[in-house]
Order: sequence, then structure tokens, then C-alpha cells
Amino acid sequence: MVLRLSTLFLRTLREDPADAEVASHRLLVRAGYIRRAAPGIYSWLPLGLKVLARVEGIIREEMEAMGAQEVHFPALLPREPYEATNRWTEYGEGLFRLQDRKGADYLLAPTHEEMFTLLVKDLYSSYKDLPLSLFQIQTKYRDEARPRAGLLRGREFIMKDSYSFDIDDEGLEASYQLHRAAYLRIFERLGLEVIPVTATAGAMGGSKSEEFLHPTPIGEDTFVQSAGGYTANVEAVTTVAPDAIDYTDAPAAEVLDTPDTPTIETLVASAATVAPREDRPWTAADTLKNVVLAAVLPTGEREIVVVGVPGDRTVDLKRIEANIAGHLETGGEVAVEAATDDDLKKHPGLVKGYIGPGLTTDAAVLGAESVTGLRYLVDPRVVSGSAWITGANEHGKHVFGLIAGRDFTWDGVVEAVEVREGDEAPDGSGPLVAARGIEMGHIFQLGRKYADALGLKVLDRNGKLATVTMGSYGVGVTRALAALAEANHDDRGIIWPRNVAPADVHLVATGKGTEVFEAAEKLAAELESSGLTVLYDDRPKVSPGVKFGDAELIGVPTIVVVGRGLADGVLEVKDRRTGEAQNVAVDEAVPLLRELTAH
Amino acid sequence: MVLRLSTLFLRTLREDPADAEVASHRLLVRAGYIRRAAPGIYSWLPLGLKVLARVEGIIREEMEAMGAQEVHFPALLPREPYEATNRWTEYGEGLFRLQDRKGADYLLAPTHEEMFTLLVKDLYSSYKDLPLSLFQIQTKYRDEARPRAGLLRGREFIMKDSYSFDIDDEGLEASYQLHRAAYLRIFERLGLEVIPVTATAGAMGGSKSEEFLHPTPIGEDTFVQSAGGYTANVEAVTTVAPDAIDYTDAPAAEVLDTPDTPTIETLVASAATVAPREDRPWTAADTLKNVVLAAVLPTGEREIVVVGVPGDRTVDLKRIEANIAGHLETGGEVAVEAATDDDLKKHPGLVKGYIGPGLTTDAAVLGAESVTGLRYLVDPRVVSGSAWITGANEHGKHVFGLIAGRDFTWDGVVEAVEVREGDEAPDGSGPLVAARGIEMGHIFQLGRKYADALGLKVLDRNGKLATVTMGSYGVGVTRALAALAEANHDDRGIIWPRNVAPADVHLVATGKGTEVFEAAEKLAAELESSGLTVLYDDRPKVSPGVKFGDAELIGVPTIVVVGRGLADGVLEVKDRRTGEAQNVAVDEAVPLLRELTAH
Repeated sequence: MVLRLSTLFLRTLREDPADAEVASHRLLVRAGYIRRAAPGIYSWLPLGLKVLARVEGIIREEMEAMGAQEVHFPALLPREPYEATNRWTEYGEGLFRLQDRKGADYLLAPTHEEMFTLLVKDLYSSYKDLPLSLFQIQTKYRDEARPRAGLLRGREFIMKDSYSFDIDDEGLEASYQLHRAAYLRIFERLGLEVIPVTATAGAMGGSKSEEFLHPTPIGEDTFVQSAGGYTANVEAVTTVAPDAIDYTDAPAAEVLDTPDTPTIETLVASAATVAPREDRPWTAADTLKNVVLAAVLPTGEREIVVVGVPGDRTVDLKRIEANIAGHLETGGEVAVEAATDDDLKKHPGLVKGYIGPGLTTDAAVLGAESVTGLRYLVDPRVVSGSAWITGANEHGKHVFGLIAGRDFTWDGVVEAVEVREGDEAPDGSGPLVAARGIEMGHIFQLGRKYADALGLKVLDRNGKLATVTMGSYGVGVTRALAALAEANHDDRGIIWPRNVAPADVHLVATGKGTEVFEAAEKLAAELESSGLTVLYDDRPKVSPGVKFGDAELIGVPTIVVVGRGLADGVLEVKDRRTGEAQNVAVDEAVPLLRELTAH
Repeated sequence: MVLRLSTLFLRTLREDPADAEVASHRLLVRAGYIRRAAPGIYSWLPLGLKVLARVEGIIREEMEAMGAQEVHFPALLPREPYEATNRWTEYGEGLFRLQDRKGADYLLAPTHEEMFTLLVKDLYSSYKDLPLSLFQIQTKYRDEARPRAGLLRGREFIMKDSYSFDIDDEGLEASYQLHRAAYLRIFERLGLEVIPVTATAGAMGGSKSEEFLHPTPIGEDTFVQSAGGYTANVEAVTTVAPDAIDYTDAPAAEVLDTPDTPTIETLVASAATVAPREDRPWTAADTLKNVVLAAVLPTGEREIVVVGVPGDRTVDLKRIEANIAGHLETGGEVAVEAATDDDLKKHPGLVKGYIGPGLTTDAAVLGAESVTGLRYLVDPRVVSGSAWITGANEHGKHVFGLIAGRDFTWDGVVEAVEVREGDEAPDGSGPLVAARGIEMGHIFQLGRKYADALGLKVLDRNGKLATVTMGSYGVGVTRALAALAEANHDDRGIIWPRNVAPADVHLVATGKGTEVFEAAEKLAAELESSGLTVLYDDRPKVSPGVKFGDAELIGVPTIVVVGRGLADGVLEVKDRRTGEAQNVAVDEAVPLLRELTAH
């Protein structure tokens, strides 16, 4: 195929688009691959569509190679199935909802668990039909609060989503591993570095889950790695809890006056005076900080929660969000934020700066009020028998030597504080190092959540109805394209990996005579008949400088220039990435280019 | 490629789906191509997706062959561009509208004129950039009042839409003809008979327009043909108006008592008595019937309109709908319906059964009230000088010899009555014959409507800004697939044309021994390596009858049976359409099948 720049629907831009925050966004717009239609919503120009088709082709091939079958669901879906799984509500503001002319509720699907579950229920009835993996490459919709970075976080985007159906846990594990391997092959073929990291399941439900993160400083996800090979999304890092401590001989707690100590810093300083310790000085790690938070439920309601964490640690709201769901009465995506003054007013027992846990010991001794009545969660470091300095629920007073499990209890343990570089990996493989990445894929063992909600049962080996167990797997297709541009660019433009480039060769004809155009035309035809795709800059009145600039911006990996050298029977073959150029005899060009562009 | 029925995600159904009205819908569901997700919204199973890909592939090739370039727009679009062209309102209830989390208005695009216009405006600036044709194959949304017949009238469907951009009318005509020729090739390659018929532009605006109708009794569109080659959608048929008549010597009109004559029939009978005619009896064609209608505007408002038509003709609301827009103050899709009793109550001057036109002659003589004040439109047969018996706007009275143009005038002429078989074609090519069809494609010369509204101007040859003129062209992709199934089926199932069949060969292995399966397996592999796609029924425990039934239902055009004959070294090759079967020696099968399936 020969694409001629004289007629190709393409105009490169010299200026960066005003709203572009990252290089891939800037370059994809400037090089004429995409155009913005609305916030987080993009139109695809001819060259963009070619790259997209190649990315989709690789994904499709690998999904078929692992035995998944392609289907296609609507984007516009009725409310009922999503109501059955409660996601109509749980998705919150992220779901585009609408009504048809009859007033029936519809949504634009953010993901299709429900529909796949119902379709398999419709067609299959026996364990003999399983295992089954289905996939689609389809347009998805999410009403992101902050669409950003062009295609990296859009509101209309293309995703490959797939779903596995198995009769038992072993089957699910096998399907999960097949997907995992296919994903690694997909990203390898795309030329996109990814690191599989342990993840939390979030609103999807289910248990085992991994993300495939592409490491880049512009990524929105923070993850950690250890030298010993542990990797995890920050939300998924589990804390190595200390062992429980025997508190048989621990002295009773006592409430002391600690005037004017509303912060951990002032408290530690005061403690050194009011109750000096002989073996070592008090540190922030000896204090228990009780932080008041609001969990914003999918319904919009606010539940006030108090979280107790060691005073030397900072609360991490995203980690709490990712891990709190099991502790609330509700499912779905919960947003966690600092309690507002309004929230606090409704709970006058919470004495700002001096909040203590709900006390099991005689409250009269230890302070008049407590947080009893509110849900109280603690960091995993708050183990039974650990002793704390913490608020006495009375202004200017703290309690010293308060023993966890003896003097106070909790409603649950939650990963509540930030992961620090240097923290030990949970598998003991060494200290953690942090990095940022973009989520390129995500695989989940959903288990039976959706099958239960929608009644997907089949006959098992014993002729009894058994609920099917499912996996859910996704690759961001348009996002992959953007990540590839992000990972492969320089000051002058994009440098596509060969497997996804919009053409094999960018052929530039420069000069005023007809000879160069005739020679280039002939070369283009020969390359085309060798099966290569040629982007041919045949524009007659455009300067060499503009043509070279456009070639570098557009980013086809091999650039061929037919110009001055033609008089000597040579043309120039240039590598877009290294900039290395070589003169090649005209009649040796086709075999050389076939070799260079083989992929 | 070999698709094995033992694992293919497919279950054929014995029963027709309850909601299926037409054969294509019944068979596409029963044979496992599609499943209903919501009214007018379908999911695609693996085999359906394969047919769809082949239909899309043919369309894409032909669009590229005519020089159109592929792009892709979002389905979710902001309100503003559609507001600029007034289609946000004009589309009425057919448009899916929604709001994002910030309350901004969005729509699911039913068609993309606005976005294409804006994109070309964004990229191009000179007549030298033109002509340009762009296309996309994309999911469209229309909130049909009555989704029906499966894929034939859906609410989420796939369309190939394209748009041409030219500097002048000659250019537009050339682009239009290129599309017209490409469409004829597309339908020829698909194996789908279509008739191009003259059409009206409806809500799209613009002038010249043709529909490509697939003739079938289940079609929703009625069209007419003449022996001389005239074809038109019924809405687009223009009436051959008689010449105006000299009324210089016509006697004055007179009002006569015609008690109890609220219908044309009773009026004609009464006329024979109260004013007998000497040359011939009165007929219904001598009467002018004034029908009160309500035009329901896109805003929901109702405008009452009176339409005068010869009494022997029936009002055709669809023809009025298609032609009335130019006569109202508003644009967009107008629904026309009979006036309700409520409508009539608001206009007490309208004397039911005795309504006359607004009179220009002395009203005192001819009746006290008139329809003056309402918009009055007439059929083209009501020419100047024609004489009518019509209502005198007084109960029990009619006026005789009322002369059009002398005694009454009108606000406009509209195609208001049904087209009858036997009516003369407007081009004089003979009497019209009616038939029904499905609209498979539609091509429009939009002209400058969208370019004007959105400011798409380029520099012309003289360096002055000139508004671009556009064409809009559509093919129903999912609808084409359904029409193909409708046109190619029998009692037992679908019979796909080769170009779009989900596989080249349906290979059935029947028998209990392992030999047939081994031989079939070998044949499948050989056919695959010859480049054929094989749907291989390798199910071990399924009876031959079920396998044959499924093969006929699914509709691959060539069926190969490996069974009893294998002992004699032969297998059976069967043509799905004719039912003809031949025994073929095993080692001659591959070359024969390659030849049979060549396309």
C-alpha cells in the first residue's frame, strides 16, 4: 500500500495543543493521528486508525492463540443486569446513564461482566461446555472526573476485555494463567515494557488480581518493587504485622495532662517531660494517631470512620479506599476523604487533637468520651499487646500505656498508611523501592460474584447445579497506543516500534526536477509489490526541511530519501531512532528495505 | 482457519425467538449469530462477527478503491456542534441524549455530518485540498420508536458513513457519482440486489438524493417503478400537475344545501340531486376534501394545518411528512398526524364534514366561517382555474363551482396524497407499479447547509473564502447482513452468499469409529492450509441428523460429509442452496473444494 502525503488527510501542527500535558498527547495530535472531540473523547485520523488496527491485530491474534473466542456486545445496555449486581449504583458518578424515549434506564457500559455472564447462561448448561474464554475489542465509556493525558485516561476508549468461565477454582487458576501469559506476549509483541504487579480488585469484586504496569514517570499508579522480585501496586502492598505481644505484666494505662499537644510532634515532646522513659526516648512510633475520615458510599451517603495508625506514619487515602470495602456494609467503589468540619460537628465526642479509641477499660478512669458508636479500624501494626500513647478523648489529655486488645478493641484491620521506600516486602524479599506506571492491563479472579448475582449455574460432574467461577481481563487498546508513543519519542517526534508503525517506510522525494519523483514513484511501487506499506511524501512544492520534519514527527522507523544522491545512483536510508543514515545504491534498496523492515 | 463445533461458542435453537417477526431475525438468532440484549440492541456471537467482518471488509475495500480515506469518530459527542446545525432539537425523540457528571449535554450520534465538517475545517484551508472523501465504519444510535425485525431496524447499529467535500457543484456531483458507483459495486459484491430510487432528503437537508432499496415484501419502504425505468421512493414521487385552466367564463360559485353529507360518498350522491350535471355524473374527483392535520414539530409543539386534496384520493401522512418541511417555519423532522378532537376544539370555525378553504371571494355569500388563519396547503392537482365542490364552512352546506385561484388561494402546494399503481411516472415513462424494499444505502447532495452552519470555508482559485459543498452517504452494515440472510434462506436455514459466509466449507464428520474423525481432521487441516476457513463439526456424540440440521441452519454454502462413504474412499460434497450432492474421492476433495469455494 502506498499512502501519498499529497492527498492523505493529514496536517501536521507546529504548535503543541494547549491542553496537552504529556508528550504522547502532544505528538499524537501534532503528527495528525488524533484530534480532540470533547474532554477525554478523541477522533481518529487515517494514520491513527492504521496504528490502532495494528495494535488491535496483535491483541486479537494472541487472544485467539490462547483459545479465546471473539464476540461483540453493545455499548448501550439496559439497567437491569447492572442492577442485579448492584453496579448500577456502585459505579457512582463514573457511569454514563441515560433514558430512552420510553423512560427506560440505560447505561454506556464501562465493562461487560454482566452481559458476558448472561450470554453464557443463555447458551451453556454443563461443565462439559467449560472452560470457556470469550473476548471483545470494544468501545467503553467511563465518566472520568479528570480525563487527562490524551488517550491515557479517556472517557470513550477502546478496550479488549475478556472473561473466563470455569467449573472450579483450579479451572479459574488455569484460565487466569493462560490470560497472564497471553498478556505478556501481547505487550512483548507491541514492544511495550510492562511489570505485572499484585493489585487490589476494587469495585470489580473478586480475589486474586494483577495489573500490568508500564513504568513511566507520567504514570498515575504508584507501585513498589523489591530486589528479590516482589512487585505490587501501592494499594495492594500488605504490611508485615509484628507478632502479638504478651501483655500479662503490662502496667495499667494512665491518663496524663498533656496540655497543648494537638499534634504528634508536640505530643512526643510533652511525653518526654510528663512521663520520661528510661530505656530510650519516646518517638512518634509510640503514639497512636486516630484520624477521622468520611467514606463516601456509592449512594452518596457519608459514613464517618476512625482509623488508628502509628503516629510516625501518614494515612494513605487511596490505600484505604482500595481496602476498606470489606469493612463497610456496602459494596462498590467507596471514596475516602478527610472528615469535614460539618462531619465532626455531628460527633461532638470527637475531641480534635485528643481523640482516643473506643475504650473497653473503665471509661471513667480514662476519659469521659470515646469513639464508641463509630466504626474503628486500625493499621496492621496495631497488634494485640502493643502499648500506645494516644488521645484520652478530653482536651489536653492523653493516655499512656494503652494496651491494644486489653484496653481497646477495633472493628477491623485495614491497610491505612502510606508505603515507604525501605519498608520490607511482605514476602521478605528485601526493602521496597517505589516507581510510577500506567495500567496497561488488569487480570482478576472474579470468582462467583457475578455468576451468583445473575444465576449462572451449570450441571457439574455429579449432575448437580454448580455456580460457575469467572475471571475478568482487560487491556487498554487506545491507551496502549498512547503508552507506545510515550515510551518511543524524542524532541522531534514519535518513533514507532515496527510492529505498530503506520507504515514500514517513509519515503521522501526532495528536489526540483522530475527525476527524483519518478525514481521515488518507482521505488514506492516496488516496495508496495514486496508487501510493504509506504508513506510517500510526494508533495511537489514542499521544502526538504518541512518534509524531513514531518517524517521525524510522524515516526515511521525507516526513512528513505530520494534526492541529490540520485545523480550518483544512490538514495539515503535513515533510522528514525538512531539517526544513522547510509547511502544505498538505488537497485539495492528494495532488498535492503525488506530486510530492515522485517517484523 | 478451522472452527470446531465442539468448542465454538454456539448453540443453535430449535424454537423461533418469541419476538422475531421476519425470517432473517428468526434464523440469525436460531443459528447462533446474534442475541438480543435490549429492544433493537444486539450482541454478536463468534459466527456473526465473522460475517460482519466480511461485510465490513468488502465495504472498506470499495470505499478505499474510490479514493475515500478511513477515519473514526466518537459515538459520544457534545451537544454544541449539533446545536449549531439545530439538529440537537430537530432530531426530536430519535436522539439519545445524556449528561455527563458535570451536567454538560451529550448525545449518541445518529450520524456525523457535524463532526466531519468540523474536522475538515480544522485541517484544510484551500481549494487545492479538495476534493476529499472521508468514511468511517462506526456504531450509530437512534432511539427508534418501533425497533423491529432484528437487525433491520435497530437502535444500536453499524453504519458506513462517508462525506464528500468539494469547492463547487460540479465537484459535488462528481463525488456523488463516485459514491453511487461504489455503492453499486458494494451491493453487487455482497450479492444483494438493490434498486437506486429517487428519494427525499428528510431531516438531512440538501437537494439531490437517492436510496438503494433492496426489494422485499418485508421492507418498510414503498417505492414505485415504471416500465420506462423511473424509480422513486413513494415519498419522493412528484405528481404530474394538470395545466392551469382559464376561468374567465366560469360561473360564480354558489352555496347549496346538502344536508347530511359529511363524507365524500354522501356528497357525491347529494350533488347528483341538488345540482345535476349534464355532461357526466359528478365523481369524487370533482370534490375538494379539506383534511385537518397536526404537524408535530421537533420541539413538541403542534401546528394545525389544513390540506386540500381531490376527494377521490387518500391523504398519505408519510408523503406529507417528507415534503412539508419547506412549508413550515421550522426545520427538522416533523411528524404529521390526524388532528385530534382537542386540536379541533381550539378551532371552532372548522365545521367537521363541511370544511372549506379560506375564501377570497365575499365570505358573506359563501359561508360565514373559513379556515383563514390556519396554514392551507393543497395537492398539486388543485391547479389554478380548477373547479370544485367543497365545504361551505357551515353545517349541511357545500359550495359548488368554487374556482381555485379565483375564489380561494393557498399557502403552498404539497405532495399530500397516496401514490397509486397506475399513476403516471413524472418523467412520462409509463404507469407506476409499487413494491416494497429495505433501505440499504442512501446518498445525499447536502450542499452547503452544514458548511454554512459550522463555517467550513476554504480559499478558492481567486484567493477568496468560499463555503465548501458536501455530500453525505451511508450504508447500513448490520442491516446489510440481515438483508442478506433475509434474501438467502429457506425453511431450514440461511444460505449465505460465498463472499460473506462465516466459513468456506462446513465439514461434518458422522459415524462411530475413529476413522471418520481422523479423515475429517486431515481434510480440515488440508483445507486450512489451502487458505480456506472450515467450520468443522467434530462433536463426537451428536447424531448425524442434528449435525445436518445445524449445517443447514448455519448456512455455509458448501457442506462436506465424511461418513459412511469413507469405507469406499469417498465423501459427499453438497450445495446448500440447490441441495445437490455428489460423491467425491477423498484425494480429489481439496482441489474440488478450492474450485467450488473460489470467490
